Amino acid sequence: MIDSELVKRMRALLGTERVLASPEELLVYECDGLTLYRNQPELVVLPETTEEVASIVRLLKDRGVPFVPRGAGTSLSGGTFSEPGVVQISLARMRRILRVDLRNRRAVVQAGVVNLHLSQAVEQQGYHYAPDPSSQGACTIGGNVAENSGGPHTLKYGVTVNHVLGLKVVLPSGEVVELGGPQEDPPGYDLVGLITGSEGTLGIVTEATVRLTRNPQAWKTYLAVFESVEDATRCVSGIISRGIIPAALEMMDHLVIQAVEAAFRFGFPLDAGAVLIVELDGPAEGLPEEGERVEAVFREHGAREVRTARDARERAKLWASRKKAFGAVGRLSPSYVTQDGVVPRSRLPEIMARAEEVGRRHGIRIANVFHAGDGNIHPLLLYDERDPEQVERVLAASDELLEACIELGGALTGEHGVGIEKKSHLGRLFSEDDLQVMLDVHDVFNPDSRCNPGKIFPSARSCVEVRRPRAAAPA
Amino acid sequence: MIDSELVKRMRALLGTERVLASPEELLVYECDGLTLYRNQPELVVLPETTEEVASIVRLLKDRGVPFVPRGAGTSLSGGTFSEPGVVQISLARMRRILRVDLRNRRAVVQAGVVNLHLSQAVEQQGYHYAPDPSSQGACTIGGNVAENSGGPHTLKYGVTVNHVLGLKVVLPSGEVVELGGPQEDPPGYDLVGLITGSEGTLGIVTEATVRLTRNPQAWKTYLAVFESVEDATRCVSGIISRGIIPAALEMMDHLVIQAVEAAFRFGFPLDAGAVLIVELDGPAEGLPEEGERVEAVFREHGAREVRTARDARERAKLWASRKKAFGAVGRLSPSYVTQDGVVPRSRLPEIMARAEEVGRRHGIRIANVFHAGDGNIHPLLLYDERDPEQVERVLAASDELLEACIELGGALTGEHGVGIEKKSHLGRLFSEDDLQVMLDVHDVFNPDSRCNPGKIFPSARSCVEVRRPRAAAPA
Repeated sequence: MIDSELVKRMRALLGTERVLASPEELLVYECDGLTLYRNQPELVVLPETTEEVASIVRLLKDRGVPFVPRGAGTSLSGGTFSEPGVVQISLARMRRILRVDLRNRRAVVQAGVVNLHLSQAVEQQGYHYAPDPSSQGACTIGGNVAENSGGPHTLKYGVTVNHVLGLKVVLPSGEVVELGGPQEDPPGYDLVGLITGSEGTLGIVTEATVRLTRNPQAWKTYLAVFESVEDATRCVSGIISRGIIPAALEMMDHLVIQAVEAAFRFGFPLDAGAVLIVELDGPAEGLPEEGERVEAVFREHGAREVRTARDARERAKLWASRKKAFGAVGRLSPSYVTQDGVVPRSRLPEIMARAEEVGRRHGIRIANVFHAGDGNIHPLLLYDERDPEQVERVLAASDELLEACIELGGALTGEHGVGIEKKSHLGRLFSEDDLQVMLDVHDVFNPDSRCNPGKIFPSARSCVEVRRPRAAAPA
Repeated sequence: MIDSELVKRMRALLGTERVLASPEELLVYECDGLTLYRNQPELVVLPETTEEVASIVRLLKDRGVPFVPRGAGTSLSGGTFSEPGVVQISLARMRRILRVDLRNRRAVVQAGVVNLHLSQAVEQQGYHYAPDPSSQGACTIGGNVAENSGGPHTLKYGVTVNHVLGLKVVLPSGEVVELGGPQEDPPGYDLVGLITGSEGTLGIVTEATVRLTRNPQAWKTYLAVFESVEDATRCVSGIISRGIIPAALEMMDHLVIQAVEAAFRFGFPLDAGAVLIVELDGPAEGLPEEGERVEAVFREHGAREVRTARDARERAKLWASRKKAFGAVGRLSPSYVTQDGVVPRSRLPEIMARAEEVGRRHGIRIANVFHAGDGNIHPLLLYDERDPEQVERVLAASDELLEACIELGGALTGEHGVGIEKKSHLGRLFSEDDLQVMLDVHDVFNPDSRCNPGKIFPSARSCVEVRRPRAAAPA
C-alpha cells in the first residue's frame, strides 16, 4: 500500500524532487488527452534510468502496489488513467538519445524522448524518425511504442511497430529484459511486436532501438478542395485504386476547416465541404508524372480547386495546420471527444454518411479530420462537459460510431488504443476464446494486473473497479 | 501413443487416402531442406479444412501424442523435423484461395497455398503477393508465416509479417482462434506478429489474410560485375548510404556464378569475382534518374561491367537464375548446408572475409549467394555427406560463421529460422531472462510441448531427446 514509508523509500531512491506526493503536484497527472476520465494518482515518481525504473517496480512489487507508466500524457483513450491506489511512473525525464548510428540507420533512445526531438537530432544529416503522430511535438517514443502510434505519413511509411527493432523492458516482476536487437528479424518469438501496442500492460519500456528514415529527395504537397465529404472520400479510393501510395492522404471536413482557418489563417476555403491533403514523395524525377496522375483523379472526383505548396515553408505551414487541427477544434466547443475507428478504405463514404446520421440523431455536432488513406477515421464529437445530459449523448453517439465501424468490416481503434475508453467494445470484435488467449499472454507478464491495471480487457481484470467518468469536472 | 487405434480413428476422420502410415509413404517426410537431420514420422495426416485440423489436434491431445505441422517441407533449419513418436500434420492439401478483395488489397488463403500461386492468381489484375522466397514455386504461405520468410524483394517490401493481417490458428488445445483481422493494426495484443515467425511452436496456422501489392509501374534490373566480393559488398553499402532503397539487392560470388551459369546459361561472366543484381522499381518517370545514381555508385566501387535486363523476358530469366541458385550449387558438390546469418550492412565486407578465412581453415569450400541489401548472408558450405569427417568440419565451420555474425552485431538467422539446427546458439544471442520470457509465452500456447517439440529453444523442452544428425545417410 501507499503510505509514508513507501514515499520515504522512493525519496531515498530518487531524491525529494523526483517524488511527487502533494495534491497540487499531482493535479496534472489526473488525466491525459481523454479528459472525460479523471482521477489523481497517489504518488508520481520520475526515474531517469532503466535501473531506477527496475528498483521502483521491485519496491512496488514487494508492497503489492499497482502502477501506471506515463509518457507525455497525450493518450486519447485514457491509457495513463490511474485507479485509486496507483503510483504513476513518469518516463518524462528519460529523454536522452543514447546512440545514433546513421550508417545502419538506427538510434537508441530512452523512452521519454519526445518523438519530434529525435527527428530534429538527425535532420541536418538528412534523416528523420518516420512515425509522426499529430502530437509529435509532445508525445514520447515510449508512449508511441505502447500505443503503436501512427500519423499522417504512416500511410506510406508504416506505424510504430515497423520502426522499432529492439526494446529494453522492465517487467512487472522487476526483471529487466532486452527484446529484439539492432538487427532485422532476430530469431525466437517476436516479443518486440507483442510489447508494441500492448498499451503498457505487459511492462514498462525504458529504451528503444528504432529505425531512422532517409528524408525523401523531393515532395509534392497538394490541397484539393471538394464540395462534399462524399466526393473527397470517393477520391481517396480513386487514388489508392490507381496503385498510387501517397506519403500522406488526409481529410478535413467543413467544421474542421472553419476551426483550423480561424486558428492559423492558412487560407483554407471556408465554403468547402472537405479538403484532402495529399503528399507525394520520392526521387525528384518521378514526381511530376505521379503528380499528374493524382491531379487527374482529383478532377475526376469533382475537385473544384487544387493547390500545391509552393515551397518548404508553405508545406510546413500546411502540415502544422493539419497537425494542430485537434487543438483548433477547441474553438468550436467547450469540449470534444476524439474518436478513433477504422474501416476498409472502400467503405469511407458509408462511414461518413453514418457519422452524419448518428450526429444528427443525437444532436451532437461531429467534425472530421483523419488519415483517409488508411481508412482511419477521427470523428470529433463536440459537446459541453458541464452538461451531464450532453455527456450521455456523446457517449451513446461514440458507441454507435464504433459499432458502425465494426459492422463495415473495420475495427474500433486505428491508433489511439483501447485504454479504458473502449474496453467494453473489445468483446464485439473478438470471441471469448480469442480474448482468452490475449489474457493468458497478459498473465505471463503481468499475473496480478498491477502493471497498468484496468486497461484494454473488458473483463474485470483490474485491481479495483474503474469508476464512471466524472462528467461534471471542467477541463 | 501412436497405435492402430489412432490410425483407425484418423482414417474414420479423413478417409484412408489422407492418412499415411506405411514406411514407403512416410519416406519423403523424413526430412526437409535441412537434409543433415532425418527421422521418419510415424504417421502423416492430410487435412483439408480448419475443422479437420482441429479434430486431429483434439484427437492427439486426448492421447498425448506430439505433432509437427508441415507445409512444403522446404525449411532449411529442420523446422519440420519429427522426433520419434510424432505425427506430421501436412497442410499441403489446404491449397484453396478463399477470397480475393482487390479493392482493399487483401486475400484470404488456406495455409497450404503455394506462395507463387497466389501471385499468379492476381497477376492479370496487376497485383502480387510481395514476399518472394527463392523457393516460392514450392513453399506454402503457412510455412512462410511460420518462418517469417523473406526473399530478394523484401528489402523494399518487407518480410512476411509485414504482409499478414489476420490468422486462423488451431491451438495445441484444439481450440480455433482468429487473430488480427482484415483491418490494419486491430486493438488488443498483436498475436498475429507473435505467431508469425514462431516456427509452428505455438499452434497450426490454417488460414491467413494477407496483403496484395500492386505491381510496380516499371522496373530497371541491373547486373553489375565486380572483380572481388569486397568491391561488391562495399558497393552495397554505397548504394544504401545514398538513400536509395532498391526493390532488391542480391549478391552472388564466383563459385555461385559458375554453378548458375552451368545450369542456366544466362551469360554470367565466368571470371568475375562477384555480381550484384540490383532492381529498382516504381513510377516510370523516376527510374532513369535513380538508375543514373546507382550506376555512378557501381562505377565508384570498380564495377568492370554493368548490364541491364533488356525486357521482361530477360529480367524473368535473371531472377529465375538467382532464385534457382541454391539448386544449381548442387552441381558443385554432393551435399551442401545453406547457412543463414545477418550482420549490419556496414559489416558485410568483414563477414565475407571471415567466411573465406573459416572455409580455408576447415578445408570447406564456401559459396555465397545472398540478400546483400538486408545484410542477410547465405554461405553455402559444400561437402560430401558420406564422409563423417567432412560433416564434422562443416558443422564446426557453420558454428564459427554464426558466432562471427553475432560478434559483428548481427544474428544467427535472417529468415530461415532456428528450427533444430540453431537451438544451441540461441543462448549466445539472448540472456537467460530474455529466453525465459519466450518460454513463458510458449507455455501459454503449448504447455506440454506437444506442438512441434524440440524446436527453437536450447533447453530440453522437447518430449524426447533429439538425436545427433545421421551424417551417413545419403540425400
